[in-house]
Amino acid sequence: MKEFELIKEYFSFSQPKSDTVIEGIGDDCAVLSIPDKRQLVTSVDTLVDGVHFYSDIDPADIAYKSLAVNVSDLAAMAAKPLGFTLALALPNVNEDWLKAFTTGLKQASEAFEIPLIGGDTTQGPLTITINVLGTVKSDKALLRKSAQLDDDIWVTGYLGDAAAALGLHDKALAQQLNDAEGYLWQRLLRPSPPITFAKKLAKLAHAAIDVSDGLLADLSHILEQSHCSAKIKVSSLPVSEQLIQCVGIEAAREFALNGGDDYELCFTAKPGMRNKILNLAEDFKVNVHRIGTIVDEAKGELQLVLNGKPYQSKRQGWQHFSE
Amino acid sequence: MKEFELIKEYFSFSQPKSDTVIEGIGDDCAVLSIPDKRQLVTSVDTLVDGVHFYSDIDPADIAYKSLAVNVSDLAAMAAKPLGFTLALALPNVNEDWLKAFTTGLKQASEAFEIPLIGGDTTQGPLTITINVLGTVKSDKALLRKSAQLDDDIWVTGYLGDAAAALGLHDKALAQQLNDAEGYLWQRLLRPSPPITFAKKLAKLAHAAIDVSDGLLADLSHILEQSHCSAKIKVSSLPVSEQLIQCVGIEAAREFALNGGDDYELCFTAKPGMRNKILNLAEDFKVNVHRIGTIVDEAKGELQLVLNGKPYQSKRQGWQHFSE
Repeated sequence: MKEFELIKEYFSFSQPKSDTVIEGIGDDCAVLSIPDKRQLVTSVDTLVDGVHFYSDIDPADIAYKSLAVNVSDLAAMAAKPLGFTLALALPNVNEDWLKAFTTGLKQASEAFEIPLIGGDTTQGPLTITINVLGTVKSDKALLRKSAQLDDDIWVTGYLGDAAAALGLHDKALAQQLNDAEGYLWQRLLRPSPPITFAKKLAKLAHAAIDVSDGLLADLSHILEQSHCSAKIKVSSLPVSEQLIQCVGIEAAREFALNGGDDYELCFTAKPGMRNKILNLAEDFKVNVHRIGTIVDEAKGELQLVLNGKPYQSKRQGWQHFSE
Repeated sequence: MKEFELIKEYFSFSQPKSDTVIEGIGDDCAVLSIPDKRQLVTSVDTLVDGVHFYSDIDPADIAYKSLAVNVSDLAAMAAKPLGFTLALALPNVNEDWLKAFTTGLKQASEAFEIPLIGGDTTQGPLTITINVLGTVKSDKALLRKSAQLDDDIWVTGYLGDAAAALGLHDKALAQQLNDAEGYLWQRLLRPSPPITFAKKLAKLAHAAIDVSDGLLADLSHILEQSHCSAKIKVSSLPVSEQLIQCVGIEAAREFALNGGDDYELCFTAKPGMRNKILNLAEDFKVNVHRIGTIVDEAKGELQLVLNGKPYQSKRQGWQHFSE
């Protein structure tokens, strides 16, 4: 019991200011106010040691990423963060580990302006389950099913960095990364879902999804649920200079198409919104790129084009980094 | 991937009718409407194989209990269930297990009128994390900190049954339980938090907590947070005939005081509310018993009285059943 009191102390760090948290941790439930004319959105994601993250990386990074990937789901709805609960299974109570973990959690909590409002700690193999809550203007959530014919397809940030970084683990731990590799590695450890930009996107976009399993896999969910097809210009895929430097342009494009772990946003909007979207992106210092168009030639078909010719993706999924 | 498609199918059972679930499972987040002038309440609890339940009992019972213990937290706030998410770690994909588990989950979902609105399945040792959401009238949630001097202390149902049943495991699996033992065993497997009664309690009671760790442990949270003390009449503790039959009145009282796993409600209300509370209990077919009074003699003190004399609880915590 003493041990779990200790855990409680570590998680009682100061929370981001919130006028919606009426009662936080400490009662049977947290109590939150929901502003008028807003709906609640919620999502849950579990990260398991050795499956979703390397066991031997800094616990601060593990915590940061665990919250970031969940916030990414809020971004994909154009939601404003409201709060999150954390269910944490720990093999043992290690104070150094807890200190680092809660430090990273606090950093993410502040970065995404989302307070911790409840939790449960149990003994077991390291498993982190976060349930995020957010709000959207009523009936304004960005759904997967709302893409429309002739919509532009956009993505935020750069794709493929994180997937390419998966192979850098040993080098990173040996502190042998060059600058470009260091950038990729940070993109894997600390995703930055564009949550503040996304909040304003509800009135400009039609449909959205977060890119977590790879652009093609995630975009196809939009196509399935919106009953439409897409044409993607491979040359327009946003890939970072660092990724090109590390793996070359061809592998970079494959990582961008099939890599995953990006936690960027893919959204569709009508062409008339281009200027507004570019202005919004500038306001929030987010990179956005138009990568294609919603077409209706065949349902759920994803057509890739490079230099006017069909492009055949290798679709190798989670490729590993090779020099 | 095929395996996880299979899991999805099992969890796509029909949900209790809800006019608040705008989008259920299938997008980045679920979308829920919150009625005007209501606040959101939320809580998360994890149940781990071998810690919170026996591995070898019917997966339907594991699922039922996992949801029930979380709904119990909603009841303790006088909240109306809104929905729940499920994060499930499974060691492997076993169709029989999944079928039984989802059957029990559906039963609980219907019994407590709370729809499944999202989830995540990962590979790992069997661990069930449920995050419940509910709503309360604004500023009407029953908190632990709101008990007042001279309040009656009430509990719902009977206490101690589940704790006494912990020792019945081998006998239950050998199907050798007598009727009284069978009742206790069911009380352990399928808690019945008084959620419909609790929803109406907000305007009658001051403070509430669910009895999950044992009456004394849980009531002391109310005393700490409300800065008051309590006097409990041990002879008024509600213990079932079956519990007395199995362990005798003295052990029954100890199970009621210190057992845990009851998932009944302990609440305080001013004496003027007695008739209204009894009428409400009758309307919802819930047993309620007045077991004591909030006093202010010393902060956080719990005084037990039996036949006019101080009663010394053995406070042995999780005792096991012996014949």
